[in-house]
Amino acid sequence: MSQKRLHALVDWMKTEHISASFITSKANVFYLSQFYTDPHERIVGLLIFQNEAPLLVCPNMEKEQVRSAGWEHEIIGYSDTDNPWEFIKKATVERNIQIDSLAIEKEHMIYTRVEKINEIFSSPILVSAEEILQELRNIKEPGEIHILREAAKLADFGVEVGVSAIKEGRTESEILATIEYELKKKGIREMSFSTMVLTGEKTAAPHGKPGLTTVKHGDFVLFDLGVVFNGYCSDITRTVALGEVNDKQREVYETVLEAQLAALAVSKPGEEIGLIDRTARSIITEKGYGDYFTHRIGHGLGIDVHEYPSMTATNTLQLRQGMTFTIEPGIYIPGVGGVRIEDDVLITETGFETLTKFPKELQII
Amino acid sequence: MSQKRLHALVDWMKTEHISASFITSKANVFYLSQFYTDPHERIVGLLIFQNEAPLLVCPNMEKEQVRSAGWEHEIIGYSDTDNPWEFIKKATVERNIQIDSLAIEKEHMIYTRVEKINEIFSSPILVSAEEILQELRNIKEPGEIHILREAAKLADFGVEVGVSAIKEGRTESEILATIEYELKKKGIREMSFSTMVLTGEKTAAPHGKPGLTTVKHGDFVLFDLGVVFNGYCSDITRTVALGEVNDKQREVYETVLEAQLAALAVSKPGEEIGLIDRTARSIITEKGYGDYFTHRIGHGLGIDVHEYPSMTATNTLQLRQGMTFTIEPGIYIPGVGGVRIEDDVLITETGFETLTKFPKELQII
Repeated sequence: MSQKRLHALVDWMKTEHISASFITSKANVFYLSQFYTDPHERIVGLLIFQNEAPLLVCPNMEKEQVRSAGWEHEIIGYSDTDNPWEFIKKATVERNIQIDSLAIEKEHMIYTRVEKINEIFSSPILVSAEEILQELRNIKEPGEIHILREAAKLADFGVEVGVSAIKEGRTESEILATIEYELKKKGIREMSFSTMVLTGEKTAAPHGKPGLTTVKHGDFVLFDLGVVFNGYCSDITRTVALGEVNDKQREVYETVLEAQLAALAVSKPGEEIGLIDRTARSIITEKGYGDYFTHRIGHGLGIDVHEYPSMTATNTLQLRQGMTFTIEPGIYIPGVGGVRIEDDVLITETGFETLTKFPKELQII
Repeated sequence: MSQKRLHALVDWMKTEHISASFITSKANVFYLSQFYTDPHERIVGLLIFQNEAPLLVCPNMEKEQVRSAGWEHEIIGYSDTDNPWEFIKKATVERNIQIDSLAIEKEHMIYTRVEKINEIFSSPILVSAEEILQELRNIKEPGEIHILREAAKLADFGVEVGVSAIKEGRTESEILATIEYELKKKGIREMSFSTMVLTGEKTAAPHGKPGLTTVKHGDFVLFDLGVVFNGYCSDITRTVALGEVNDKQREVYETVLEAQLAALAVSKPGEEIGLIDRTARSIITEKGYGDYFTHRIGHGLGIDVHEYPSMTATNTLQLRQGMTFTIEPGIYIPGVGGVRIEDDVLITETGFETLTKFPKELQII
């Protein structure tokens, strides 16, 4: 699997006449090697050549995990007192490879590392490796879809736990803690982002922070959460109400739901990504809430919780089978509250499938 | 408070003849402005000049939070369709400031941003701002110590919850979930790193991953956890046992504890940092376990959970009042198990104080 991906990258390097690639982000190292790690300040990198087998550079203490992840090529391990850059230089010299141009992740690599590269390879031309890797990661393979499906199921479960935990007088923090407790008990080690449980007026802040605010009768309660499962992320949002809703709340809810369903309905191979945002936005605008839908319709989803492509109104990229992303329209009215409904979506051969399946009709608890 | 810190940075810029600083890491932006945010791909930065008031650049939607964090100087907000780099350029032109040299965080800034800087300022000399900021952050002010003390109390509480949750047959994940449940219920939004609960032989891996392994009679259970509280981190490790320990386990435990207490005892103003590691290491080595103490004695602690200084055997920096760091010796015997004991330590006028206070004598549950 990683073999096929490495080949695709090497083909691109040959076409672009790039001497080597040095890939160091957690997500792309995982994508190309199946080795998932967060080495913090220590360097982990894949050194990829046109006509030689690739190498993986990592701290000695991670070597065993690299092997058990299935990496079959050479591993260059280093200790805390070694200089890994010397080992990288040496590997290229031994192979008689002159690094005239090097593909790196310019959106990820920190400047001190670029300085090191310039030092050991005499300032090669630096090319961005990000676009080609985005393109490869954009179409998910069956194995990846299988994992994303499991991750989405766990997100559904998280919302289910959250909804059951709602009770007048409970704090956002208590409900959030209950959700994460049930997920972590199942062995989930990492949420894909900080879990959001917001109530009442706080639902009007798209990036609000949960705290000791208590749920009150007539409140909306908004959940936005996801898990990391086998290296892949899920991301779901549901909004429910406690006790009752007034007419305004119901109208806002029904508008968001209508927009979300309409956006899903246009999601199929061949359509332009921008159409998804525009479809949802026009419904929300018609109902007079256009100014309160303050963000894009969604984002690509995979190893990163926010990845390529960006699901904006102006994105002209065509949808293709195997793409996965979120569709999450929202209406946020300051001083009143907000509603967002978000699914993880897979483009199938003929249309779409939502990977998240928690019901979307307005639930009054 | 931030005013004093900004002055110190400006004084350094004047001495070093640096035209401006552009600070973009979450930790240093917080340190210098009290504004705590994680803007992901969007840029948030402090632009600091020698003889003009500083500016804070951020997305429009964050402006209000910057103000409520207490920032009194200019804020340059930008929308998703603006180019923030143009605004940064314009701010320097309006002030008639020629950027010949610019201090940046070379260990943090990604390469595309360096490219932008080179473009708008015609490739200025780039100077590292990291050393001066590390030096400033190294000595904690009373307000910072107060927060670190609260963060440490919450870490103590986390261990207390974890110890009470131990029961034969419970999984690591269940115990971990219980700890985080109780902390998050109190309103803690973020742990300072992925909580670690390891049992039995898994305690032998300094960076092992908790999972569905169950606690058995005679196991060590190792907790390593911390919280982010008001922007500052805590980090505690305790190891307890279930049911009983054998002689070997007891010897390993007592050796680590003796090493930890001895390392604490040499922690006072004027001593060399390296002495702390060497003191603990010599005790562990004397007992024949030197090869199993595979990491440094600790790390600086503050806004970042791992920050300057690195507490290694060869660090010749002198301890000074107001420094905070961890002391965490460990012995890890593959196939047997491991013990680590870690406190958060403050250097006082005459010696040290541990901010974490959970008991350290061997507890058999």
